[in-house]
Amino acid sequence: MDAKARILPNGAAPAAVLDSPTNPMVTPLLTDLYQYTMAYAYWKAAKHNDRAVFDLYFRRNPFGGEYTNFAGLEECIKFIANFKLNEGEISFVRQSLSGLCEDGFFDYLRELDCSEVEAYAILEGSVVFPKVPLMRIEGPVAVVQLLETPLLNLVNFVSLVATNAARHRFVAGKSKMLLEFGLRRAQGPDGAITASQYCYIGGFDATSNVAAGRLFGIPLRRTHSHAFVSSFMSPDEIIEKSLKSSDGSTNCEDFVSLVHTWLNKIQAVQWSKSSNGMFGQTNHSELAAFTSYALAFPDSFLALVDTYDVMRSGIPNFCVVALALNDLGYKAGGIRLDSGDLAYLSSEARKFFQSIEKEFRIPGFGKTNITASNDLNEETLDALNKQGHEVDAYGIGTYLVTCYSQAALGCVFKLVEINSQPRIKLSEDVTKVSIPCKKQCYRLYGKEGYPLVDILTGENEPTPKVGERILCRHPFNESKRAFVVPQKVDDLLKCYWPGTSGKPRVELPSLKETRERCIKQLEQMRPDHMRRLNPTPYKVSVSGKLYDFIHFLWLNEAPVGELQ
Amino acid sequence: MDAKARILPNGAAPAAVLDSPTNPMVTPLLTDLYQYTMAYAYWKAAKHNDRAVFDLYFRRNPFGGEYTNFAGLEECIKFIANFKLNEGEISFVRQSLSGLCEDGFFDYLRELDCSEVEAYAILEGSVVFPKVPLMRIEGPVAVVQLLETPLLNLVNFVSLVATNAARHRFVAGKSKMLLEFGLRRAQGPDGAITASQYCYIGGFDATSNVAAGRLFGIPLRRTHSHAFVSSFMSPDEIIEKSLKSSDGSTNCEDFVSLVHTWLNKIQAVQWSKSSNGMFGQTNHSELAAFTSYALAFPDSFLALVDTYDVMRSGIPNFCVVALALNDLGYKAGGIRLDSGDLAYLSSEARKFFQSIEKEFRIPGFGKTNITASNDLNEETLDALNKQGHEVDAYGIGTYLVTCYSQAALGCVFKLVEINSQPRIKLSEDVTKVSIPCKKQCYRLYGKEGYPLVDILTGENEPTPKVGERILCRHPFNESKRAFVVPQKVDDLLKCYWPGTSGKPRVELPSLKETRERCIKQLEQMRPDHMRRLNPTPYKVSVSGKLYDFIHFLWLNEAPVGELQ
Repeated sequence: MDAKARILPNGAAPAAVLDSPTNPMVTPLLTDLYQYTMAYAYWKAAKHNDRAVFDLYFRRNPFGGEYTNFAGLEECIKFIANFKLNEGEISFVRQSLSGLCEDGFFDYLRELDCSEVEAYAILEGSVVFPKVPLMRIEGPVAVVQLLETPLLNLVNFVSLVATNAARHRFVAGKSKMLLEFGLRRAQGPDGAITASQYCYIGGFDATSNVAAGRLFGIPLRRTHSHAFVSSFMSPDEIIEKSLKSSDGSTNCEDFVSLVHTWLNKIQAVQWSKSSNGMFGQTNHSELAAFTSYALAFPDSFLALVDTYDVMRSGIPNFCVVALALNDLGYKAGGIRLDSGDLAYLSSEARKFFQSIEKEFRIPGFGKTNITASNDLNEETLDALNKQGHEVDAYGIGTYLVTCYSQAALGCVFKLVEINSQPRIKLSEDVTKVSIPCKKQCYRLYGKEGYPLVDILTGENEPTPKVGERILCRHPFNESKRAFVVPQKVDDLLKCYWPGTSGKPRVELPSLKETRERCIKQLEQMRPDHMRRLNPTPYKVSVSGKLYDFIHFLWLNEAPVGELQ
Repeated sequence: MDAKARILPNGAAPAAVLDSPTNPMVTPLLTDLYQYTMAYAYWKAAKHNDRAVFDLYFRRNPFGGEYTNFAGLEECIKFIANFKLNEGEISFVRQSLSGLCEDGFFDYLRELDCSEVEAYAILEGSVVFPKVPLMRIEGPVAVVQLLETPLLNLVNFVSLVATNAARHRFVAGKSKMLLEFGLRRAQGPDGAITASQYCYIGGFDATSNVAAGRLFGIPLRRTHSHAFVSSFMSPDEIIEKSLKSSDGSTNCEDFVSLVHTWLNKIQAVQWSKSSNGMFGQTNHSELAAFTSYALAFPDSFLALVDTYDVMRSGIPNFCVVALALNDLGYKAGGIRLDSGDLAYLSSEARKFFQSIEKEFRIPGFGKTNITASNDLNEETLDALNKQGHEVDAYGIGTYLVTCYSQAALGCVFKLVEINSQPRIKLSEDVTKVSIPCKKQCYRLYGKEGYPLVDILTGENEPTPKVGERILCRHPFNESKRAFVVPQKVDDLLKCYWPGTSGKPRVELPSLKETRERCIKQLEQMRPDHMRRLNPTPYKVSVSGKLYDFIHFLWLNEAPVGELQ
């Protein structure tokens, strides 16, 4: 049992569980129409209370990788906890179904909730693998069927984006600051807000999205934009020029003049070849914008330096403002590069900052923060690393939040048992055959502390024991099997919604706890599963008993072909 | 002036404009933090009321095509109309900004709204092209800056998904039914709901998403799922077996027996080689599921036929139930294929339906509707067309709603004028240089009635006239220019939010009107712009006068380089 999973006494309902889903558009109507027609067909056949077990799982890891981060559980449990149709919704369902539907069905819908549903799930943020149930939902077949589409919707994208964030973190390295800047390009308002939330869980440090910052307490970060820079014409526009020193002890009457003094000073110095003494030409409207921004935010002055020309204008303009601020006891926040060759420009900027530190004896100036943005993704981060660069922080948007390299995760929701009868879904594609039965799921750890294999067993099979040999079989390939002696065993499925089972309920963790688990679990994986190029697949297996049963059922249900 | 653009008398506020955005998460905080820090810097510099003009446009058409459908305008105007920060929001902004911010700024935020903002836009649903402003927003620079991120968020994804839908319609052809089935794989709840809405605008016929059906009046469609089929074990489960005939004149006491009578009848017939008399083996749990579904929905019986085996089980089981329904005067709705070779299976199914029509003299049975699903996209539709198939309707999900082949559109929002001074944003990449000045935008049509070229002119240049020769220049390539004698001229930018300008306001059209415009405009494009392989780019130009001004400003702002 994971130490982080706090168990609540039976019946206790922590506040988080009772909240509605974050997005008010998540209602019982956020489902496919066929869920309601099937619910009616179950009801009409008096099968609606048949006890069904569904598994929610995916078949393939995204982004060409060999791992996925499970997310969305909290919203799923909130949805289940609050599942109830109101009169308007019932009336719309009635109107959408055939005119032949009986009134009794709508009375049934009126009473419907998830009090008889049980939801088991892997801890949110966990590293997970194909075929392992992320959630197991049990309950009356008609109501669980209605949950299928919303649960898939609530898990698919956020698991994908959390995984994408984790992959970006992996390439960027632990020491870099990762900022999510994707709001404007995300797939709608909710796509943006959830991306901010789940990128944070996946290992990002902050977001630019104010709404997400407010909703979830995620740290906020910002610089400024090209529009701000180009909105200024010249320093003459600046009317209020005075600035108090950081400690409040002195007042600079004319900060604009102080900046210009510094401009003259750096123009007088013989710099290295690359900067080439061209600073007479720095763009004056840009300098006005930087000066004005520094007057507004002297304690956190950040500048976007590529509106006109990075090396000939943006960087020297930033430096003269930063030097003027330094005179008043303020430390500038840094620069942002949003175009061009980021490896080259960041290295040149660093050299220039170091020259300033040396020339004017400003300790620490050489370490001024450099943020890079501009359509960054896993590949560009990797290329920057290979080339060498001086970037301290990355602002990542489009490719991160839309999961551009693979825009969907294919979680499915399959019936595995009804009225205690195991069910299987066949397919000509063996990867699409479902694993039948209500199952238990365990993670087995090896001697070096790494997770070694996940194993699915029948519900009533004994729990694998530390130090005891157990046979792990590939579910569909009879030649792939191995004995494992686990050094540690995690029971993966926890009860988050006990229904009428009387089981104790595991409390939903906070966002920060989920983020910590996610980061820690990723660090604990064996490195060859994590590498970007040809990672080793993590093994997912079934017990010998479950293997035999799957294949018995398969042969039983599949018709015998006849070649012609 | 487009005949469809209804102009309201000045001051009239139609109900639609006053509604809030559809998604309640769209608030003034749905923006990047830097918009608030810049607003503070503008305010601190007493520049916040400087009159700014911003253009919202994209630089490249998505999906390797040469056109885009503009969407999202209605939500943008609703957002502008309702833009107002509440106390909680102001307090969060205060907390997120530097502690040094003056109180006066928050008083300013408290009073802020869009009453002084003017919004001009191209009609929603229009076919649009790179560099042409889709929206032009004018107003006090601080407030327009705050609008940047939400407007981009509200336009980017929905324009992308409407375009994706239009492209799927183009490949599928006008005669096919297109169903959007993407809710479970979409990028979150709102991603799904907006995909349903804007795929409908882009030319889809219906959705499975009940919430979207309710919100927007989009037609709903459904079949059933594998879980329903596999939830049945045998026909013995069916207790309520009676079914009234369609006209109510007779009652069939045992519909299950009637189905079995038909099963025996079709088993007795010598079928073609491909079906091979194997129907004794149809899966009985599947037949039970179909029978039960028919009892619930006798007037719209649809069957998913691939749970066990399409040709040996699903199709014959569907047929026997459909034939039993036919005895009682009901016409079956059709089948859905969700796996396998859709070209082959649909053709085989069609042949079998035709054999049934002939053998049992059931007029129309050969035309039974065939819906195909299973990870369809533009390429698979194209491949099906080339191979030949018998599919009548497509259910399309993942690739459509997540815009899998290109998950983001890159609309940007650039300052083009401030206090009547034109502004330009330079870049080493010439495609990223912005076109300065407050502009007018026209679409010029040629002799054959096709749109020929879009032209941007300075605000005060004369409107191009029908029959009068006008020079159209490429904005950045001096050798590309052409004289055009337009046969028709459309003024593209309409006033949707007049601010204090006193201009009349154009009313937002209904969803259906937008859909019709979208479909009609796509049909009116010259075919070579629309083809999938190597389409011809549509020309976007500037007037000679604007061309000269762009290049004057460019040279003025860019520093002169020095080769070393």
